[in-house]
Amino acid sequence: MPVVVQNIERAAPEVIDGLAHAGVATVHEAQGRIGLLGHHMRPIYPGARIAGSAVTISAPPGDNWMGHVAIEQLKAGDILVLAPTSPCVDGYFGDLLATSAMARGCRGLVIDAGVRDIRDLTQMGFPVWSKAVFAQGTIKATLGSVNVPVVCAGAAIAAGDVIVADDDGVCVVKRADAPAVLEEARAREAREEVKRKRLAAGELGLDIYDMRGTLERMGLIYV
Amino acid sequence: MPVVVQNIERAAPEVIDGLAHAGVATVHEAQGRIGLLGHHMRPIYPGARIAGSAVTISAPPGDNWMGHVAIEQLKAGDILVLAPTSPCVDGYFGDLLATSAMARGCRGLVIDAGVRDIRDLTQMGFPVWSKAVFAQGTIKATLGSVNVPVVCAGAAIAAGDVIVADDDGVCVVKRADAPAVLEEARAREAREEVKRKRLAAGELGLDIYDMRGTLERMGLIYV
Amino acid sequence: MPVVVQNIERAAPEVIDGLAHAGVATVHEAQGRIGLLGHHMRPIYPGARIAGSAVTISAPPGDNWMGHVAIEQLKAGDILVLAPTSPCVDGYFGDLLATSAMARGCRGLVIDAGVRDIRDLTQMGFPVWSKAVFAQGTIKATLGSVNVPVVCAGAAIAAGDVIVADDDGVCVVKRADAPAVLEEARAREAREEVKRKRLAAGELGLDIYDMRGTLERMGLIYV
Amino acid sequence: MPVVVQNIERAAPEVIDGLAHAGVATVHEAQGRIGLLGHHMRPIYPGARIAGSAVTISAPPGDNWMGHVAIEQLKAGDILVLAPTSPCVDGYFGDLLATSAMARGCRGLVIDAGVRDIRDLTQMGFPVWSKAVFAQGTIKATLGSVNVPVVCAGAAIAAGDVIVADDDGVCVVKRADAPAVLEEARAREAREEVKRKRLAAGELGLDIYDMRGTLERMGLIYV
Amino acid sequence: MPVVVQNIERAAPEVIDGLAHAGVATVHEAQGRIGLLGHHMRPIYPGARIAGSAVTISAPPGDNWMGHVAIEQLKAGDILVLAPTSPCVDGYFGDLLATSAMARGCRGLVIDAGVRDIRDLTQMGFPVWSKAVFAQGTIKATLGSVNVPVVCAGAAIAAGDVIVADDDGVCVVKRADAPAVLEEARAREAREEVKRKRLAAGELGLDIYDMRGTLERMGLIYV
Amino acid sequence: MPVVVQNIERAAPEVIDGLAHAGVATVHEAQGRIGLLGHHMRPIYPGARIAGSAVTISAPPGDNWMGHVAIEQLKAGDILVLAPTSPCVDGYFGDLLATSAMARGCRGLVIDAGVRDIRDLTQMGFPVWSKAVFAQGTIKATLGSVNVPVVCAGAAIAAGDVIVADDDGVCVVKRADAPAVLEEARAREAREEVKRKRLAAGELGLDIYDMRGTLERMGLIYV
Repeated sequence: MPVVVQNIERAAPEVIDGLAHAGVATVHEAQGRIGLLGHHMRPIYPGARIAGSAVTISAPPGDNWMGHVAIEQLKAGDILVLAPTSPCVDGYFGDLLATSAMARGCRGLVIDAGVRDIRDLTQMGFPVWSKAVFAQGTIKATLGSVNVPVVCAGAAIAAGDVIVADDDGVCVVKRADAPAVLEEARAREAREEVKRKRLAAGELGLDIYDMRGTLERMGLIYV
Repeated sequence: MPVVVQNIERAAPEVIDGLAHAGVATVHEAQGRIGLLGHHMRPIYPGARIAGSAVTISAPPGDNWMGHVAIEQLKAGDILVLAPTSPCVDGYFGDLLATSAMARGCRGLVIDAGVRDIRDLTQMGFPVWSKAVFAQGTIKATLGSVNVPVVCAGAAIAAGDVIVADDDGVCVVKRADAPAVLEEARAREAREEVKRKRLAAGELGLDIYDMRGTLERMGLIYV
Repeated sequence: MPVVVQNIERAAPEVIDGLAHAGVATVHEAQGRIGLLGHHMRPIYPGARIAGSAVTISAPPGDNWMGHVAIEQLKAGDILVLAPTSPCVDGYFGDLLATSAMARGCRGLVIDAGVRDIRDLTQMGFPVWSKAVFAQGTIKATLGSVNVPVVCAGAAIAAGDVIVADDDGVCVVKRADAPAVLEEARAREAREEVKRKRLAAGELGLDIYDMRGTLERMGLIYV
Repeated sequence: MPVVVQNIERAAPEVIDGLAHAGVATVHEAQGRIGLLGHHMRPIYPGARIAGSAVTISAPPGDNWMGHVAIEQLKAGDILVLAPTSPCVDGYFGDLLATSAMARGCRGLVIDAGVRDIRDLTQMGFPVWSKAVFAQGTIKATLGSVNVPVVCAGAAIAAGDVIVADDDGVCVVKRADAPAVLEEARAREAREEVKRKRLAAGELGLDIYDMRGTLERMGLIYV
Repeated sequence: MPVVVQNIERAAPEVIDGLAHAGVATVHEAQGRIGLLGHHMRPIYPGARIAGSAVTISAPPGDNWMGHVAIEQLKAGDILVLAPTSPCVDGYFGDLLATSAMARGCRGLVIDAGVRDIRDLTQMGFPVWSKAVFAQGTIKATLGSVNVPVVCAGAAIAAGDVIVADDDGVCVVKRADAPAVLEEARAREAREEVKRKRLAAGELGLDIYDMRGTLERMGLIYV
Repeated sequence: MPVVVQNIERAAPEVIDGLAHAGVATVHEAQGRIGLLGHHMRPIYPGARIAGSAVTISAPPGDNWMGHVAIEQLKAGDILVLAPTSPCVDGYFGDLLATSAMARGCRGLVIDAGVRDIRDLTQMGFPVWSKAVFAQGTIKATLGSVNVPVVCAGAAIAAGDVIVADDDGVCVVKRADAPAVLEEARAREAREEVKRKRLAAGELGLDIYDMRGTLERMGLIYV
């Protein structure tokens, strides 16, 4: 059953870039609080904020052969998403694979396993969100699949879904939902901007959101 | 039983600031090696070193309603301390609540759960010590309490206790003990400064602390 | 049985420095993918890359007495390696012990437990790889041993073995193997440099490593 | 978006029962080593071996309201599958909900969270595979969904998929694949029975599987 | 500051025994969902259900000296509660200490650390709830305290508080609250018994609790 | 470097059986509190207490090929010890390999990874101490080594060392030390038997070990 799905569909570039600008927390809220990957997925360096189309890899534990196969499927703006078939922290990716991926226009890597050469990756500006940093090498002995649906860090991801990643973690947006999510994200940002100014000026959320009556009715007592 | 305790007592500002200057490790030693929160409480960015009076929040899992209630109770120099009533990593706090807290003079947040918008919080200079970074949104449906005694990350904390937090983690000092702890912390710093100079000059702890005889009597063998 | 082994043998300085330059991932590969410490061993600050001869400490939980004993055994270029005799996250080392160790020419600390005063250690440029950052103080009541073989973070380490540590983690090289491992590491770096250029130019690993035929024979299907 | 999907499709009863008989390890192998839930999913008592159609619950953290809603959707032979929308260990299920579920013919519960009243559940013979045993109570304040696709303990599960659970853990079989997986599982059992007898008689796997030549060619050395 | 508090106050025996009969989940609910120890506290064998007055031990990591001191303070019906001053999994208690505690009428041990000799303890019928089973020995070198307030597995416990423990875990009831909690627990059991019969007869919680209208108003959709 | 070491040396059978009788906690104490494997190594069923000579397996993650190779090296009374070369929870062993091992006289398995078919293994009476129970299948693609020194669950183990395992966990005794450790274990058991009787009769450890004076001198205060 090892298979490589070619010619996947992708969301529109301007939608993807809009989602990157909104960031993980806003996108997650905008689509109804779904799609987050587990909080153990942390960036190897702070400050990166990206979005891209998922090119998925289902890989055996400790075997990064499919990394090379997946890179051929990359188009500019894509993000590699690797899910091992059983829990693994080995360092599937290092500077060589990252160099190859960057040469294809890849924007970063999301991997529910380990990564290595992180000093080089940081200098190259190739962001990675991973479960671990671990130098443990991998082999090239067993097949996996590329661009099949995977569950990565607890989230179901299909090839071509939009991945958004920043310092808060990683979120996936179903490809078909991306335009509507972006619209809601922008509306949300606008609403939040108003609130932020009022809060910064010293107004209380209790008043802005008109919570005092409800709190009293539910039984909150001040002593 | 949801309750908000108003008008809590606080330690003197100069005592609080003195404890901030001493830092977590020294304060912890000065009060007899008690009061540390668990080591899973990590800062969202390095370099912050603060102290303040605890405004405590006991919150249901995944519900940040009491955050807004607590912010009204803040005075300049306070630190918010949130303990969920069952284990939770959801992102109770983000940039909006932090903006509101900062507008009240809040110095930071200690939360045995998750936090989000950490890029914004870092830019705002609002330090947070948390169990996780996680964008998972929370709701406002269930009451909790403010300024009641809580157990946060394994430490018992009462409203008005002094929280000290830096790159080493978080420590709580009982309000009534704060002046004496500060005095001992300063004495300790003075003693350590002397030792530091001797150690930096190449003297050995074995000699400074006169350990060689004891080690030999206890049976340490050199081969 | 508490014992301090003096006058341990060390690898040649130029071999040690060569291994530091190669870094953890390359050294690990060069010696056949062995010797890595567990991935929970993380640096207290990014960017350090060191190698040195191991001065090992076997210490009881929560007791750092042997730290002082070990420091006397240090020679310039050594790295302290502390393994507790049962799982522990207490802060065995802080700025005083680090000051003393640096005065003896110590390059850093690898500790399968906790460390504290990390702001000071960062400013001093004393790198530490640890299981935790925790201010919890330790005592000086029970003997341990220095320069005996230990298992630290899952790796067997003897005094005088070469420790290599960088942002990817920590690796140990048996003292006797160090020259051969360095030679292989350099050869590996040279080979990788060639590949890196070809990959950066857009060639695919599938072609560079001539994988297409094997993948097809093993049953990989493109759809 | 909270929704309850009624009238889901189920696999044939004899297929489901056949999969229960085969057990988790065999079913997992028979369908190509996919479908396992995470190994943190452990039974509350040993010896249960069940299979049934999944009635899925997507529930907020600490809120078991949808448990009651889901129970109405149960048919005899079903298994409840609960996935919280963020990590949670609260005790969503106890003896009351289990009594209700058993009255509807439910065969057991798979929950990526906590369970309580396990002494009662054991006496009732209601098996549960969970992430935790925890008495922490839950509320009924927020809606979730029933019979929507969920990711539970790392596995994607749709309503009506076949759940197989025993002492080894939990596995999901896509409803449409169930008949073919059962056929392969039975064939596998037959093959294994032959091998088991030969191995029990003292023959070696090295000979039964004719491995010696391959091992030698790959470089295995006997000393 | 090491201290042993003698002559602590205890709740009435019939109250304690009543709470044991109610069990952890019911007691936890009856007192407003507070007082649970962390879910990592698991029994060494199934089936024990006890309650007793807490005799607390604050012990250094890896040092069980205070165990002997605490045993002298035991009265018939007490439960030992040990909280290490920093995280530790060492086996503080084994069959000798348990023999001594049983001879004093001790009903069991709650320890946020390790325990050993569990085969013997099981045969003796001495129940233990612990964080780990670990044979690691401890020493007798450093003082701690007995019957001081502790935080054990995340719960604040004072000497004389009532500990309830069963297969679901461990719960603490403040001594002064114990009679009222027992009363509420019994009322709760009576209410639940009625519901259990109705649920067992096939009635749905949706109807018993009259939830359908609320669910519809909140927006739950059936498809 | 994949190698199989044949004809390893073993301790005398009566020494091995004596250590089994003493059990893990006593053996660990008798050899100076060393040799314990990590506390995450738990038995798949309670009650087993075994000792045997280690036949070690160093295996790649997710690859159990060397299991078959190791079984040929077994002699009656041996225990298989598997250490993966990087962290892994896959189910390397199931009922087929166990059947084969039992046919060679193997007494059990110690594996710092996963095991499956545990219902069958329990019925067969083949005890296993493992890091996880997980049905995840493994492959046979890459070589490892047999009877080389390994670090398993944090303990250094050489082929022929004596493994002792029971409900408390697993301990290793160096082959050459085994007779002396047994002698000390027996002496310890005799000493403990005397103490056990005195403690059971109600004498206090404080008096038996004559601790009161020391406690007072060290500053313990009774209030």
